[in-house]
Amino acid sequence: MKTIEQNFAVPFRYGVYFTEGLFSPENNLLPEVLAQDKATSPRKALFVIDSGVAKAHPQLLEQIHTFAAAHADTLQLAEEPLILPGGEESKNNPEHLQTILSAVNAFGVCRHSYLIAIGGGAILDLAGFAAAVAHRGIRHIRIPTTVLSQNDSGVGVKNSVNAFGKKNFLGTFAPPFAVLNDSDFLLSLEDRDWRSGISEAIKVALIKDIHFYQSIKHDARKLVSRDMAAMQKLIHRCAELHVEHIGGLDPFEMGSSRPLDFGHWAAHKLEQLTKYSLRHGEAVAIGIALDVIYSHLKGMIPATERDDVLSLLQELGFRLFVPELAQQEADGQLSVVQGLREFREHLGGQLTIMLLSKLGVGQEVHEMDEELVRQAVSYLQKKHQPQPLSQV
Amino acid sequence: MKTIEQNFAVPFRYGVYFTEGLFSPENNLLPEVLAQDKATSPRKALFVIDSGVAKAHPQLLEQIHTFAAAHADTLQLAEEPLILPGGEESKNNPEHLQTILSAVNAFGVCRHSYLIAIGGGAILDLAGFAAAVAHRGIRHIRIPTTVLSQNDSGVGVKNSVNAFGKKNFLGTFAPPFAVLNDSDFLLSLEDRDWRSGISEAIKVALIKDIHFYQSIKHDARKLVSRDMAAMQKLIHRCAELHVEHIGGLDPFEMGSSRPLDFGHWAAHKLEQLTKYSLRHGEAVAIGIALDVIYSHLKGMIPATERDDVLSLLQELGFRLFVPELAQQEADGQLSVVQGLREFREHLGGQLTIMLLSKLGVGQEVHEMDEELVRQAVSYLQKKHQPQPLSQV
Repeated sequence: MKTIEQNFAVPFRYGVYFTEGLFSPENNLLPEVLAQDKATSPRKALFVIDSGVAKAHPQLLEQIHTFAAAHADTLQLAEEPLILPGGEESKNNPEHLQTILSAVNAFGVCRHSYLIAIGGGAILDLAGFAAAVAHRGIRHIRIPTTVLSQNDSGVGVKNSVNAFGKKNFLGTFAPPFAVLNDSDFLLSLEDRDWRSGISEAIKVALIKDIHFYQSIKHDARKLVSRDMAAMQKLIHRCAELHVEHIGGLDPFEMGSSRPLDFGHWAAHKLEQLTKYSLRHGEAVAIGIALDVIYSHLKGMIPATERDDVLSLLQELGFRLFVPELAQQEADGQLSVVQGLREFREHLGGQLTIMLLSKLGVGQEVHEMDEELVRQAVSYLQKKHQPQPLSQV
Repeated sequence: MKTIEQNFAVPFRYGVYFTEGLFSPENNLLPEVLAQDKATSPRKALFVIDSGVAKAHPQLLEQIHTFAAAHADTLQLAEEPLILPGGEESKNNPEHLQTILSAVNAFGVCRHSYLIAIGGGAILDLAGFAAAVAHRGIRHIRIPTTVLSQNDSGVGVKNSVNAFGKKNFLGTFAPPFAVLNDSDFLLSLEDRDWRSGISEAIKVALIKDIHFYQSIKHDARKLVSRDMAAMQKLIHRCAELHVEHIGGLDPFEMGSSRPLDFGHWAAHKLEQLTKYSLRHGEAVAIGIALDVIYSHLKGMIPATERDDVLSLLQELGFRLFVPELAQQEADGQLSVVQGLREFREHLGGQLTIMLLSKLGVGQEVHEMDEELVRQAVSYLQKKHQPQPLSQV
C-alpha cells in the first residue's frame, strides 16, 4: 500500500523586549504582550520566581500582586507565585519540577494560560521544561534576571533539567511566548553574576562579530565598574546575535552542529566537576580560554590573538584556571576530556567543536587532539593558577 | 531599546509506511528508512517492546537480533530490547518512563540514534515521550501493532504519559522519524483490540468523509470476521485522513480546536472512570454514540442518521453502555460531565466540542447542554444496557 507522506512546517514567533520596572504600575509591556493572544477574558498566570531574586527584591511579590490587581482585565494570578531555589540545584532536584507540575494541575493552568518565570537561566530552564511538557505545552513567558539569561540562555528555544548526573539530559525545544528583559533586575546582581554573563557575549563575538568583540574590549573598564548603559548595549547585541542564529539555521538542532557553542564542551564538564560551584559563565570563560589556546596550538590563530582574548577575560575579572581542569581519571586521562565524549553523545553522532580561524570567525572541527588539549590545560595551569600566598 | 523579533518555521517530514513481515530477512523497509538520515556509520537503536506483543510473537526478539545482524552496516542494537507492559499501565506508572530514560543514558543513545518502539498506542506514547525529552529529542520510529495505533494514535505527532490521575497530562508534540505499519502484528490481536481501533475510523469518517463511512458500513461484516484486506483498507484511509488533518492546519495545536476529536470528551473520562478496563477505542465508540444522540437531541441530525451510526457500532460488536456512563457525583452531576471541564482545561481556554451537522460533516460547538447530555446518557442506558440474565 502507498506510503503516506507527512510534510508540514510549524511557524514560531516571539519577541525579546527590553524594559525597566516591568511591574511598575505605569509599565504596560506585560499586558501589551499578553494582548497578542487576542483572548477576550483575563489570562490565568502562574508565576515561578527564583528565591534569590525574591530575596534581593523583597518588594517583588507585592508588586506583582498590585500589578495583577491593576490589570485584572488581562491577568489573573492562578495562585500565590511559587518561590523555588535558583541555580543548578533547581535543575538537579526533580522535586522542583514536580512542584511546578503539581501547581499547574492544582490551579487548572491550561494550554492558553501562562507560566511566567522570573529568575536566572536555571529557573528559566526548569520552568520552561515544565511549561513544555504540561498539557503538551502551556504558554511560557521568561523574565530573565541575570546577564547570562538576558543575553543568551533566556532568549533561545531550549529548556532542560539535569538527570543521571548529566547537565540538560532532559529537555525540549519550545519557543517561549515572549522574553521580557528588565534591566532593573541586574542592579541587585552579585559581581560574580554580573561578570559571568559577559563570557557568553565574548563567545558569540569571537565566532561571529569582530566589531562586537572590539566594542566589548572598548567597554571593558565600564563593564567592570558596573556601568548599566554599557551592559545594556552588550546584552542587546548578544541577544540579537543569538536570536538571529537560532532563527536562521536549524532552530531545533535537527542537524549536527551547534556553532554558537564555542568554549562549551569543557565548560559543561567543568561545571559538573566543580559540583556547580563554578557559575556557567565562569566555566565558559575558562572554556573559551582553553579553546583559544587550543586554536593557537593547532596553528589556527597567532599568539597575539590568543593573548588578546586571555587579557580581556582577565581584565573582566575571570579566573582562567581551577584545579578541576587538570583533574585526571584513574587511567591518566584528563577528566575534562570525558566531556568531549559526553558532548558528542548529547549532540548525537559526529563530534562538532567550534574553534577560531581568527578573532570574529569561528571554524568547526570534528575531532580534538587530546595531547594538545593537555598542553592547553598546562598552559592555563602555569600562567593562571592562583599562587599560594607563600610564593606571592 | 529595540525589540528583537524572532520568527522562523521548523519543517517536519515523515512517512507512514505499510508492510508485512518487517523483520523478515528479505524485508528492506527499515534499513531503507534509516538510510534517509544519510549517516555513514551504523545507527545505534534501542528497541522498546510491548510485553503483550513480545508474548504474542515469541519469535520477535530473535527475529530482531537476526535482522540487526544481517543489517549490521546500517543498524546496531544499543542493548537487549526493553520489554515493558503495554496498555495504560505503562503511562500511569512513572517507573517505566524512568526505565527507558535510564537505558538511553546507560547505552549512550544520542540525538542521532533511534528509539524504536513496537506496541500499542500506550507504549508508543510512552516511548515517544521518552524520546522527545531525552537529550531534547532522539529519533523515534514507531511500529504500531494495533488497529488503533496503526490508523490513529501512532501516525500523529503527539506523545504522552499520565500524571495526577489525568490522561496525557505530560507530553509533547514531536513528529516521529517514521511510522512502520506491519499488518502481521494485527493477526495476533484479541478480538477486542481488532474491533477497538475501528471506532477511530468511524469517528474521522463521520466528521470528514461520508464515502469512507459508507465503505466501513459496506465492509462491516468482513471487518467482524477479521478480513485482513478490509482492515488494511480501513487503516490506510483512516491514517491518511489523520495525517492530512495534522499536517494541514495546526500540527502542534497552538490554536483552540482539535476537530478530529469527535466523541472524545466523554471517552477520556470513561476510560478513567472504568480504571482503564475499557480500551480507548471501546470508550470512543460509546463517546461517538453519546455525541450522535446529543447531535440529534440538539436538532442537528435526524433520528435516522443517529440510528444508522448506532446500528453500525452495534453490528461491529461495540458495547454502547457501561454503568460508569451514568455514574453521579455527590451533587447529582454526572461524573462524565466533569470530563467536559477537564477537556477544556487540557485544550486550554474555550471549550470546543465536535458534533455532527450531518453524517460526514462535523460541526464545532463551544458549549454543551448538561440536561441534553443527561438525556443522551439515559437513551443509551435504556436501549443498550445489557439485560440481567433473568430478564433475557
